[in-house]
Amino acid sequence: MTDPVLFFVDDLAEGIAAPALRFHQADPGAAQIPVMNLGPTRGDGIFEAISVVDGHIQAFDAHLRRFARSARLLDLPAPKLAVWRDAIRTAVAAHRPVPEAYAKVIVTRGTEDAPDLPPLGWVYVDEVDREAQIRARTRGIRVVLLSRGYRHDIAQTSPWLLQGAKTLSYAVNQSALRWALGHGADDAVFTSTDGLVLEGPHASLVLKRGDTIATPTPDQGILQGTTQLSAFEFFASAGLRTEYRHVAVDELADADALWLVSSIRQAAPIVAIDGTAHATDRELTDRLNAYLLARTA
Amino acid sequence: MTDPVLFFVDDLAEGIAAPALRFHQADPGAAQIPVMNLGPTRGDGIFEAISVVDGHIQAFDAHLRRFARSARLLDLPAPKLAVWRDAIRTAVAAHRPVPEAYAKVIVTRGTEDAPDLPPLGWVYVDEVDREAQIRARTRGIRVVLLSRGYRHDIAQTSPWLLQGAKTLSYAVNQSALRWALGHGADDAVFTSTDGLVLEGPHASLVLKRGDTIATPTPDQGILQGTTQLSAFEFFASAGLRTEYRHVAVDELADADALWLVSSIRQAAPIVAIDGTAHATDRELTDRLNAYLLARTA
Repeated sequence: MTDPVLFFVDDLAEGIAAPALRFHQADPGAAQIPVMNLGPTRGDGIFEAISVVDGHIQAFDAHLRRFARSARLLDLPAPKLAVWRDAIRTAVAAHRPVPEAYAKVIVTRGTEDAPDLPPLGWVYVDEVDREAQIRARTRGIRVVLLSRGYRHDIAQTSPWLLQGAKTLSYAVNQSALRWALGHGADDAVFTSTDGLVLEGPHASLVLKRGDTIATPTPDQGILQGTTQLSAFEFFASAGLRTEYRHVAVDELADADALWLVSSIRQAAPIVAIDGTAHATDRELTDRLNAYLLARTA
Repeated sequence: MTDPVLFFVDDLAEGIAAPALRFHQADPGAAQIPVMNLGPTRGDGIFEAISVVDGHIQAFDAHLRRFARSARLLDLPAPKLAVWRDAIRTAVAAHRPVPEAYAKVIVTRGTEDAPDLPPLGWVYVDEVDREAQIRARTRGIRVVLLSRGYRHDIAQTSPWLLQGAKTLSYAVNQSALRWALGHGADDAVFTSTDGLVLEGPHASLVLKRGDTIATPTPDQGILQGTTQLSAFEFFASAGLRTEYRHVAVDELADADALWLVSSIRQAAPIVAIDGTAHATDRELTDRLNAYLLARTA
């Protein structure tokens, strides 16, 4: 691991008096956040985790679009994307060149009981633990299916539940991963209470049947996957049909191949579901990961 | 407002090599948390907010019990409650005497991607904005009913969703409060998808009909309310029957009086539900709040 890089973003959102600096570097080893910040006290904020391969910031536009969308869903002031873009580029450039890094981009709402204080935002860049990622890409992952407890239409019926926003309130996502590890698996796939497949705690689900690739429609209270968008570009270029649709849990067993795709890990083929081995497509997986890792934007 | 007081708890949990200090004071105005702490990055931790009236730490045992329970539900190491008790007492004693203060007690899981590093824990004591609390206690609050999106038995069917734990992932609770404020109300009451009343985002619901006081059974993925426990003591001493049971949404309209009870705000009578005025019991509310504020433990 090399030394991580940290930049705070000062001029981070619309409607907030512009500070002297747009962004500034800080010491990632030092304490940086007050104890009454709404990040640690309430998980009240948003984030993105962006993969950086050979210095290329991948799916940059898609990440920034989703970041802005999460801010809207949480009633946070609109992020100044041009400033964030420059701050992320600058932080990535300040990191020693490594094959794979990631940029973690965070905004918290600000300070508890002090609504007039501005949000706090930063970009953190560090090297990826590449061995673990390569293992997942090549050997695959075992998943368990876990109910998310909601119907698939939760984002429409109950917008206050923030489903579809990438918030800092990820205790449940972390808990689902612990549950998976405690039950002989490597990862989880969330399902809806009405029998549909949703997404992983940190990844989108993509499946192949015949010459068609499908992923669950993001209007089901799930995230628009940035890596899934790139994966669909690859599949289309490979002559496969791609579609967004409702995917029933029952369909998983019949898929020719399934993947959890995400920034940093890229495409991890699913080799087992709830303890039952599942078919994979090694050649297609390798081509998909080669495509994803070769992205220059 | 007086100056807040901050103590970090060093010897905070079982199974972790005991540090030199049990706890130590720190500057609440300074940055104290690294950016890769799992509090700000994932809302991955637990908390309690304890009211302190005339220096008395209220419902202290009930808060510590719930704190330990939340730790268990999140697979966090068991907090050393004797150390926490002393740390909270010390932090409260270090605060200038004020009529009403609160102690915020937090543990985060530690550092992202560094599972061998210990959790981070602290106690923060500050004066309460008493005017806002007195207003809620005397004038009452308007609430909206908001679905939590889950069935009432979610904690049993899907324990990985952490319902019933007081986690730092409170973005949804904060969002529900914003929704209430944006819709002509002061607070919210969550309901289950199968027609039961659950709790408020930061409070327990208590209702009176005839000579019976009821609150929703905490096995419905909701918190055991520490103030609700004290309120039940008061109601029993006042000759009323108290019961834990399933409360149907339909019952709310027929209640003689309803309250949201919580630390810090104590008992806030509900004066309107979804825009419809609701009966209150001023005399009983005043007696209830007098009882709650007089608690010495």
